[in-house]
Parts: sequence; C-alpha cells; structure tokens
Amino acid sequence: MSDLDKLSKLISAFRALPGVGYKTAQRYAYGVLNMKMEDVNNFAQSLIDAKQNIHFCKECGNFSEKEICDHCLKNNAEIICVVAEPKDVAIMEKLKNFNGAFHVLHGCINPLEHKSPNDIRIKELVARVQKHHTKEVIMATNPDVPGDTTAYYIAELLKPFGVKVTRIAQGVSMGTDLEYADEVTLNRAIELRNSL
Amino acid sequence: MSDLDKLSKLISAFRALPGVGYKTAQRYAYGVLNMKMEDVNNFAQSLIDAKQNIHFCKECGNFSEKEICDHCLKNNAEIICVVAEPKDVAIMEKLKNFNGAFHVLHGCINPLEHKSPNDIRIKELVARVQKHHTKEVIMATNPDVPGDTTAYYIAELLKPFGVKVTRIAQGVSMGTDLEYADEVTLNRAIELRNSL
Repeated sequence: MSDLDKLSKLISAFRALPGVGYKTAQRYAYGVLNMKMEDVNNFAQSLIDAKQNIHFCKECGNFSEKEICDHCLKNNAEIICVVAEPKDVAIMEKLKNFNGAFHVLHGCINPLEHKSPNDIRIKELVARVQKHHTKEVIMATNPDVPGDTTAYYIAELLKPFGVKVTRIAQGVSMGTDLEYADEVTLNRAIELRNSL
Repeated sequence: MSDLDKLSKLISAFRALPGVGYKTAQRYAYGVLNMKMEDVNNFAQSLIDAKQNIHFCKECGNFSEKEICDHCLKNNAEIICVVAEPKDVAIMEKLKNFNGAFHVLHGCINPLEHKSPNDIRIKELVARVQKHHTKEVIMATNPDVPGDTTAYYIAELLKPFGVKVTRIAQGVSMGTDLEYADEVTLNRAIELRNSL
C-alpha cells in the first residue's frame, strides 16, 4: 500500500537482523507501532549509541566502549581463553571458575567460507602470548570441524613459545539421555574417557 | 560489564519486541554491531518515521499515514470484511477475490482479557454500516472462542439494520492430512458440510 511506505521500510530494516524473515519482521514492526513514542525514540537512540560507541578492544578483540576493555585491564594474560566470537566471551564470562583473559578470533579457519589463518586474529594472539609470557592458552572454539582445525593449528603454531595449549573437554553433556546422544559425541566421550 | 552499558541497553530495547527473549535480543544486538553505520542510522530513522507518521485510519481502523487510508478512499463500504487486528488486513489484502472495505476491531470480545464490546471498535462499525448502507458484513475474526463470540455478537447487533452478516467458512485446511486434523475442526467440517 502506497500510504504505508514507512511501515514497509521498517519491516525491511528488521529483516536485516540475523534470522528474521518477513513474518517476524512484520510482527516486530507492529510491535513498534504499539509502543509509546518515547520508547521508540529510546530504541532508535540505543541503536545509534551502541554502533557509535562500541568498538573492538585492541587487546582481546571483544566488543568494548574503551580502547582496552575492562576485562583486559583487570586480568593479566597468564591464561588466555581463545574463542571464536564475541558472544562466546559473554557465555564464558558467566563461569565462576575462570579468571584469565580472553582472546576473540572473529571466526575459525574454514576453507568452505574462505577463511584462512590470516583472516582471523591469530597473529594478535601470538603477539600477546609473547608479550605477556602466557603460561596456558585454552582453546574454547566450537566442537566442530572448523573449531577443532583452528585449535590444532594454533597449538602447532604456539609450540616454539613453550606455552601449554589445552582444549575444552568434549563428551556427553550433563543431563543428556545416552539414547539421544549422537554417535560422534559418544565415540569422542569413550575415546577421551577419564579414570575414576 | 561496565564498559558495555550501551550494548546492554540495546539488548533491553530488542527485548521489548513481541516474543523476543534475552538470547535472541543478544543475537540481534551483535547483528547491529556488525552492520554499517549508515544502515544502523537508517534503521533508527525508520523506527521513528514509522511511529511518527503511521496512525489509525479514522474510517477502518487500519494503520495508515493519512487520516483516511487509500483502501477506504478507493473502495466503497458495500461489503465490509471485519478483522481483529491490522495484521489480518495485510493477509486478507493479498486475496484476489475480495474487493470490499475492511474494518479493524483492534481485539475481540474476551472476558479473560477484560475486553468487553465497548473496548473494541464495534460502535464505529455500526456507524459505518448505517452511513454507507452496507449490504454485507463478513466476519473474518479468528476461528476461536473470542473470534466466534465477537462474530455472533456483531451479527445480533446488526440484525435491526437489515444487513447480511456472514462468517468465513470453517473446516479442514487445504492440503491437510485428515489423520492429523483436530477433532473440533473435523466436527465443524462435518456439521457445515456442503452438497456436491
């Protein structure tokens, strides 16, 4: 409808968000029309504020409003936990028994997506390890082919620096019913079994 | 994290959208951070533009940028299709064999949600029917208890005006496997069977 151009534009804007199709975008747009003007203004402002003020921390590569993020200022890099994406830091930060630093690669080595080691922040990780005399690097990339490849690649690369490189444990999840666990996971769980 | 206040605010803003939980809001926020500044500015502007310019059409109650929407200007109200929400107009508009006017009730009669006949746009419908000497009112509210209640209520109310009130057909959907059709639908389909 010609008299609803602005609604169509808003629907298109919502469709640019990850995983949002037409029907969902339409629901969100109607949701916005039902909000108070003040809330819509705040929503618009928060979009611009976030985009304008949040950059990547020069040290760890995570999102931050500062040049060096609070996490990097607070923690030394004796132990570095390496993750693929900023969202993974948010998850790992919730864990109470990890107090080290983070390093965000912004992707994993993945030939199918044309991501080579030079396309992700591996150089920066090596520089950090050298600079801070890091004792351990924990590879917390996803347990899939690109994640595993990246972990092994970095482990090889860091060997000359005498740093210990570890990988988060893989096996059956807590609370899983073995009946529904997939074969690859079960095989891995048996292969990496621990003595009691 | 204190240096990511603006990210938290953006996540909260997304959570205000219908059906969006924390994880989804977080994914959208990261999506925004990965957009170009220009696209984020356009997104913010489209929110404000839509909210500022889109109001309810005085005639049919649907969203419009004008006082009377294009649809109401173009179509006479000889046949009025009554729906519960503006989103239903968007769906009905796609049908090729309906050329009449629409009327949006903005809800259905629903005691559980404290919606009485006075809380929805029934008065306005009666006024329209009288003014335009409408010949038929098609009740296209949802086929559920509030939708049916509203349809019957309006049918009773419009009796004195000599207008024909019809209800969209209920039965099994095209392509349904009878095995999976629910009992209420099947019973309704038998009750309302047509001769061939």
